[in-house]
Amino acid sequence: MVVKIILAGPRGKMGSEAIKMIQEEPNFQLVACIDKQNSEKPNFDHVEETPIYDDAQQCFSEITADVYIDLTIPEIGVPNTKLALEHQICAVVGTSGFTEENIQTLTNIANNNQTGCIIAPNFALGAVLMMLFSKMAATYFPDVEIIEKHHDNKIDAPSGTATKTVEMIQQTRTSKHQGHPEEYEIVPGARGAENDGIHIHSVRLPGLVAHQEVIFGSKSQLLTIKHDSFNRESFMEGLKLAINEVQKLETLVYGLENVMDIT
Amino acid sequence: MVVKIILAGPRGKMGSEAIKMIQEEPNFQLVACIDKQNSEKPNFDHVEETPIYDDAQQCFSEITADVYIDLTIPEIGVPNTKLALEHQICAVVGTSGFTEENIQTLTNIANNNQTGCIIAPNFALGAVLMMLFSKMAATYFPDVEIIEKHHDNKIDAPSGTATKTVEMIQQTRTSKHQGHPEEYEIVPGARGAENDGIHIHSVRLPGLVAHQEVIFGSKSQLLTIKHDSFNRESFMEGLKLAINEVQKLETLVYGLENVMDIT
Amino acid sequence: MVVKIILAGPRGKMGSEAIKMIQEEPNFQLVACIDKQNSEKPNFDHVEETPIYDDAQQCFSEITADVYIDLTIPEIGVPNTKLALEHQICAVVGTSGFTEENIQTLTNIANNNQTGCIIAPNFALGAVLMMLFSKMAATYFPDVEIIEKHHDNKIDAPSGTATKTVEMIQQTRTSKHQGHPEEYEIVPGARGAENDGIHIHSVRLPGLVAHQEVIFGSKSQLLTIKHDSFNRESFMEGLKLAINEVQKLETLVYGLENVMDIT
Amino acid sequence: MVVKIILAGPRGKMGSEAIKMIQEEPNFQLVACIDKQNSEKPNFDHVEETPIYDDAQQCFSEITADVYIDLTIPEIGVPNTKLALEHQICAVVGTSGFTEENIQTLTNIANNNQTGCIIAPNFALGAVLMMLFSKMAATYFPDVEIIEKHHDNKIDAPSGTATKTVEMIQQTRTSKHQGHPEEYEIVPGARGAENDGIHIHSVRLPGLVAHQEVIFGSKSQLLTIKHDSFNRESFMEGLKLAINEVQKLETLVYGLENVMDIT
Repeated sequence: MVVKIILAGPRGKMGSEAIKMIQEEPNFQLVACIDKQNSEKPNFDHVEETPIYDDAQQCFSEITADVYIDLTIPEIGVPNTKLALEHQICAVVGTSGFTEENIQTLTNIANNNQTGCIIAPNFALGAVLMMLFSKMAATYFPDVEIIEKHHDNKIDAPSGTATKTVEMIQQTRTSKHQGHPEEYEIVPGARGAENDGIHIHSVRLPGLVAHQEVIFGSKSQLLTIKHDSFNRESFMEGLKLAINEVQKLETLVYGLENVMDIT
Repeated sequence: MVVKIILAGPRGKMGSEAIKMIQEEPNFQLVACIDKQNSEKPNFDHVEETPIYDDAQQCFSEITADVYIDLTIPEIGVPNTKLALEHQICAVVGTSGFTEENIQTLTNIANNNQTGCIIAPNFALGAVLMMLFSKMAATYFPDVEIIEKHHDNKIDAPSGTATKTVEMIQQTRTSKHQGHPEEYEIVPGARGAENDGIHIHSVRLPGLVAHQEVIFGSKSQLLTIKHDSFNRESFMEGLKLAINEVQKLETLVYGLENVMDIT
Repeated sequence: MVVKIILAGPRGKMGSEAIKMIQEEPNFQLVACIDKQNSEKPNFDHVEETPIYDDAQQCFSEITADVYIDLTIPEIGVPNTKLALEHQICAVVGTSGFTEENIQTLTNIANNNQTGCIIAPNFALGAVLMMLFSKMAATYFPDVEIIEKHHDNKIDAPSGTATKTVEMIQQTRTSKHQGHPEEYEIVPGARGAENDGIHIHSVRLPGLVAHQEVIFGSKSQLLTIKHDSFNRESFMEGLKLAINEVQKLETLVYGLENVMDIT
Repeated sequence: MVVKIILAGPRGKMGSEAIKMIQEEPNFQLVACIDKQNSEKPNFDHVEETPIYDDAQQCFSEITADVYIDLTIPEIGVPNTKLALEHQICAVVGTSGFTEENIQTLTNIANNNQTGCIIAPNFALGAVLMMLFSKMAATYFPDVEIIEKHHDNKIDAPSGTATKTVEMIQQTRTSKHQGHPEEYEIVPGARGAENDGIHIHSVRLPGLVAHQEVIFGSKSQLLTIKHDSFNRESFMEGLKLAINEVQKLETLVYGLENVMDIT
């Protein structure tokens, strides 16, 4: 059975990668795009035959679809996702920046329409599993440090993934101070950024792309969970999974880990 | 509340490490040892005050205990564990080599006596989690290779842990050939030991202790789960966990992962 | 001072990367290309203004240049490099497959014309240093294994770099058997490809690009030298170095390590 | 030919490991010890037959030896090493804390007596090579960060080896700022301890021993040099090397790398 897909944000980095994936996947079909500034055509095969709407309401009314993919910005993504759910089209949201309030509103609409919605801050399955496994391990290994490594064009540190990993670890880890009780830094910063006793170290070098390792230490043993991501192509397996899983839902799910079968 | 412990195998490598751990743990108390060849005393503090039995039946009749720990060989461990369970003393078994049949028999006795029993082939919590996470990841990452590294005194390859990891991965992974369909080795062995399409590579060098990494590859991303073990001390956290968990059971559980709280 | 460069092989993968680098480097100037099948134009900026010759003799006669870069195949590269040196144009050769005899002939021509020539089987400076450091370390660490990891489109194993690394290590290492004297494989291939006692392990997974680590083991310590290469761009720093160094030479040098300043 | 050795500091951690090594090595012979507080005997085989002096002057006068090993403290080590050199006994010094002035004085005495002396701040050959290779690589890879990992009993950060590595790298690296020119830390310390643009990250966890990796990044490639040390046994190969090399010298050499044959 072919999954009919409407995609919003076809000219962005994620969007163009997503279109490539949809066109390569035999059981996916791109039936329309939603694109605000459509003077310039998106760049994909058969673009001539795929209608491009700048009005989402009109698109959802005229086009029959199974799944709506939102890869835009919150100002566009929130109202569009509402409309999709109201038209009982399942929604997969990769747009970042949705607030708690946005998510609550969309949850209500999804429930009222018994239509599935997945909002995923990260589509890289390996990164999602790294965070999930870290949360699981922290019950038994409360001593943990994170090393994240990125290219030297990254302006801020630590990375969002590292911060998110700490949050997930805190759900299971018993809070504790780590390291020697009287430890001191000869040069400030040596011990990294500390958050609830967990230290994060941010490496920035040319040649790096996006890497993170979570190191758990215990008496005479170490457990390390590591993820390396080389480009946006790494998000496509997760997007495929979301497209397939969202159709089985009748509510909103936040985080890809919550639709993964990990037993 | 203090946990009263009987230990069999006090002079072995695991046994002496276990006694050290029991003596350091405030809520554990060593109440007796079972030791076949007791001409030579085991080497631990207050050994004078701890009775050492060579007859297990007599030990279990005379001594009140909560948990029996078996760190022996199957010829001794199987009958001793039976006796412990029949005396409604919970049993933790670290002895390797118990057969399927042994385990079935012990399960029946545990059930009949509503007494907990944990048989664990590996007490290193990090290794147990590595295998469990590998099984979970393989659903989404069917392309996987294992590198295990040990000191150069190890005579056989691959390691038991690597073989066990492959077995666990096979429970979730869709069987597939990996690598280039026409790949060939210029020098035989380059691609490692293959089992159901999964390749294992065994490194042996002085300076190494016991290390394993499981590498999952997918388009533009890698997920790596790694465990390093430096000595038997690494088993003690897992043994502690088993001692605490076994008292909550009324049946037999095989594998430490099945009493771990990983959510 | 601007370096005037003639490049042969402008449409190949290395060639197009090289042109990009030359155009970005302020003191390099592309003055001509040599290209056998010139019906289809190479794809670079200002290609209209850069003459493209299919006759090397004519190119070297008409064009004044400091350096000739050969990124072709031996059938083209050997005669072209001869001609360049005879015209006293320094030559940098990245073409693989030159024989010992080719190299001897070119050495004679370089010496007779007091013109520099660098033939480099590998332009990735990190890989060159990895091999050089491995050779240095092997004097003191005769126990060594190599793990090389590549994408699963690579058809052969082990990699050429791994084989070359073993050759360099053999120049300093005292030959020895490694591992347990009676070691055995439960599954064939576990211990990898063996060459003079050195074991090579070849990992192939999607997501990998080109990676190698050389692990030296000794009592209670390990020394690891690792190189990761993500694409052909990694060769450009080495090509730049060769272009600059070749102009200081009056003979032929084989291997980039021999013009590097490592003290 | 047997090397006759006098050792000062036989009861320290390094000293007792050194005696074990000397006794295992067929061509080394322990002929005397120097030990200030000799009421308690050092613990080694045949200690009864090995004279123990508390007066260094008397020891060097009465005992014929080829090499003196100093594993003490500067207050004892400086005068003892002077006396050894004046008796034309070669000296190997592992004691840390000798000042520049001490070293100058000892150099003069070594030269005047044409007697070899090696002062080595680090006897782990792998660590010495890691630092040396890092210095070599930095000429071509000026972007570099260091991650050092130690057990959580270590009180200070960064480690002495990391600081020393930066010093060695600075001998060849062109000074530069690294990372994004406008980079900022969301949590202070994320980017580690900075020294001349080089960032050091110090990880502290139970289960770790002593590890360091030096990561060099360049366009699309990474070069990593890593050392793992598991206990003091790792210093013994370097001590052996020093004992053998010092006898060929007629002057003082500082740093093991300067007597190593690395070509």
